[in-house]
Amino acid sequence: MTTARRDTYTPETLLTVAVGVFNERGYDGTSMEHLSKAAGISKSSIYHHVAGKEELLRRAVSRAIDGLFGILDEPGAGRGRAVERVEYVTRRTVEVLVAELPYVTLLLRVRGNTRTERWAMERRREFDQRVADLLKAAANDGDLRADMDIRLATRLLFGMINSLVEWYRPQAAGGYDSDQVAEAVVRMAFDGLRTES
Amino acid sequence: MTTARRDTYTPETLLTVAVGVFNERGYDGTSMEHLSKAAGISKSSIYHHVAGKEELLRRAVSRAIDGLFGILDEPGAGRGRAVERVEYVTRRTVEVLVAELPYVTLLLRVRGNTRTERWAMERRREFDQRVADLLKAAANDGDLRADMDIRLATRLLFGMINSLVEWYRPQAAGGYDSDQVAEAVVRMAFDGLRTES
Repeated sequence: MTTARRDTYTPETLLTVAVGVFNERGYDGTSMEHLSKAAGISKSSIYHHVAGKEELLRRAVSRAIDGLFGILDEPGAGRGRAVERVEYVTRRTVEVLVAELPYVTLLLRVRGNTRTERWAMERRREFDQRVADLLKAAANDGDLRADMDIRLATRLLFGMINSLVEWYRPQAAGGYDSDQVAEAVVRMAFDGLRTES
Repeated sequence: MTTARRDTYTPETLLTVAVGVFNERGYDGTSMEHLSKAAGISKSSIYHHVAGKEELLRRAVSRAIDGLFGILDEPGAGRGRAVERVEYVTRRTVEVLVAELPYVTLLLRVRGNTRTERWAMERRREFDQRVADLLKAAANDGDLRADMDIRLATRLLFGMINSLVEWYRPQAAGGYDSDQVAEAVVRMAFDGLRTES
């Protein structure tokens, strides 16, 4: 039998543990019992910090959402031609995803069974829509290829970016740093893999 | 109480039901009981067709794997410059994914808990490797931008393609057909979203 650790958690450090468990077991598959075991403190100690697992979920996905929406308020997202702005937002989205990997992973995996999950999905859609609007503006400027459907391009762009949560591991041997990945996504999505012909 | 249907299944039609259940509940979370309920026939009727759920998994992922590897034997994958061949394989991969959507979805979701799952993951890696080899050959021909890491490009290309299983629904109103999606993936990945400057 393991002895319960003394509760030295803050809401912040408890969140780190919870996000790990949510990502491993899925939010639906996680009970307060699982969280208590992973944190090594009693359930009542957890309730001392948060009202329950949905509050932990809300805090965790908020961190990802705030990170993403924060990008849109940065100067690079607001000035210059739309195509430059959308490239900037793409680059920064990859950087935020890498910096907040477990939180964004959780955000991308929520499935809409609770109010918090539905709210998170709604906010995520809003973010995608903001990027779609920028792509649309760039197309109107004549800076994007005319034969590309913008809604489809948005899907594929986020498909490429969001796939990072499946395979990107910052500590992996021979791994890529945030800059390399961000640059590769922007170059591939906007300029393509082919050499200029 | 529902009456069990008379067993009019063939191994093929039973597979369709099983793949649906696997994709909904996850392979690990699916029992013979779930399959029996979804098919509306008894467990012993299912055992009349297959040895168990792992055989159904093997048949299902084989269908996806055979579809993907079949592409590599097509004339378009074998002749011409490497960059043309890899564009061909990319386009056909999207088409196979769309044509075999539930089967490829299952293939992309297996997690390696059984021998069949590990085999499927291995075959999938082999396919990715074949595409990476083509990209490498295209880079050696000078047809791909020199500043792009090939391993990273392969990951991002499959990230874009595989994201289709998350959002593409062939019957969706205002949806895209297989051709449109395949063309969009190839154009975005190889030529980029930007107009030629």
